[in-house]
Amino acid sequence: MERLSLNQKTVDQWGVRQVVDGCARAGIGAVGLWREPVADIGLEKAAKLVRDAGLRVSTLCRGGFLTAADPDARAAALADNRRAIEEAATLGTGVLVLVVGGLPAGDRDLPAARRRVADAVAELAPHAQAHGVRLALEPLHPMYCADRAVLSTLAQALDVAERFPVDRVGVAVDTFHVWWDPQIDAQIARAGARIATYQLADWVLPLPADVLLGRGYPGDGHVDFPALTAAVGAAGYTGDVEVEIFNADVWAQDGDEVIATVVDRYRSLMS
Amino acid sequence: MERLSLNQKTVDQWGVRQVVDGCARAGIGAVGLWREPVADIGLEKAAKLVRDAGLRVSTLCRGGFLTAADPDARAAALADNRRAIEEAATLGTGVLVLVVGGLPAGDRDLPAARRRVADAVAELAPHAQAHGVRLALEPLHPMYCADRAVLSTLAQALDVAERFPVDRVGVAVDTFHVWWDPQIDAQIARAGARIATYQLADWVLPLPADVLLGRGYPGDGHVDFPALTAAVGAAGYTGDVEVEIFNADVWAQDGDEVIATVVDRYRSLMS
Repeated sequence: MERLSLNQKTVDQWGVRQVVDGCARAGIGAVGLWREPVADIGLEKAAKLVRDAGLRVSTLCRGGFLTAADPDARAAALADNRRAIEEAATLGTGVLVLVVGGLPAGDRDLPAARRRVADAVAELAPHAQAHGVRLALEPLHPMYCADRAVLSTLAQALDVAERFPVDRVGVAVDTFHVWWDPQIDAQIARAGARIATYQLADWVLPLPADVLLGRGYPGDGHVDFPALTAAVGAAGYTGDVEVEIFNADVWAQDGDEVIATVVDRYRSLMS
Repeated sequence: MERLSLNQKTVDQWGVRQVVDGCARAGIGAVGLWREPVADIGLEKAAKLVRDAGLRVSTLCRGGFLTAADPDARAAALADNRRAIEEAATLGTGVLVLVVGGLPAGDRDLPAARRRVADAVAELAPHAQAHGVRLALEPLHPMYCADRAVLSTLAQALDVAERFPVDRVGVAVDTFHVWWDPQIDAQIARAGARIATYQLADWVLPLPADVLLGRGYPGDGHVDFPALTAAVGAAGYTGDVEVEIFNADVWAQDGDEVIATVVDRYRSLMS
């Protein structure tokens, strides 16, 4: 339980204050925050709320969307990511998750988009270092390759991350995105100290009409959580374990019930 | 145009006779057949129809679903695949496409399911050889890993195929399934003479509610067809190029119009 973190997207029906209160009621010591709900109540206020509650902030979600070829769009994305780094520092988390972005409209050159991501990370890394924030490159499931993340495998995220010092650029390992990968055990072992966050959600079928919302409670789907968790542990990761579920049915539930289910699943799958 | 093959699933609104007639009208010389519509009019009759029309049968779709752990279910799957091999021989095609199957219900052990696939291919390979049929292992997009194919990348399909003689077990390269793969160029080059069929469909967003039907006309989506086709050509593949689209909107169109669009897209993207 000491390592369980509630990613606030799991209780998207709640704002930051409710999430903080809900974690306190459930005895959860860490929270993963998102920039939009943080902005809703104000950055400084959010930072004070989590600090006063004694909560760790495991990660801030998210920066990224770094694939623009257009110079103005690229400059805007870099500026936004610098702000995200600063927000992470203000919130007291050492990890900013990057969802790197898909193909620009009408652009089919995946290798070039992937190169632009690596170049952008190189531009952001010094700013992250200056603020004590580590960038966590998140490979997303290949079904999001066109529109959300041209980094589709852990191997690919590591290929970029390894160009930088291990404490500056890491990777996010999210079970929903990587469970299918035939190389996953080897790549988790390779990742080792690059693992900046470990996130749990299950692959549940059928996929909903909006595949972004297909993430299920751990245990409801096809992911082998004990195997992946063992691999992440064997790689040396001892940090927070975030439960991050995007699911319209979950969002329609009472937030405290959602947390109770999260705690229950976490206990049964991580023991 | 000599290499264009119409996979009959693209005109699922038609039976075998209509497909054969439609190909003749459009000057298409090859067709990819499916077992179910072939069975609808009878195997021998279908074989005679395509033979009399002078059509090549590029592939038969499909065998596979070889992941059962239960001995009876496994035996039934192997028997069905032996029949599929015989049907392919009767239809005059040298290629049987295998969609290898997903996880059995309640089973989360992906590595074991993948081992069962390799074992099953070993059991089927002699029967295929005896009938002059090559098995084509088709990696499916990772979004189908749980329910349709535990082979999710070309590398993985090759890891299995390479245990067998090159003329007995090959791979299917389907743009829709592999376009996102950061290793795709290297793996197509590695595949070389293992490429048993090359199939075209585009990745179009948003995905429909039934993600099986998300395949679009080449050119409508995010796939870089010239790049993939060049890689497949550089690997030495000179066989048929199948257009295989599962799409409810396409199936609602007039079949001849569908074929006209297929021919148009093929010409513009393959030239």
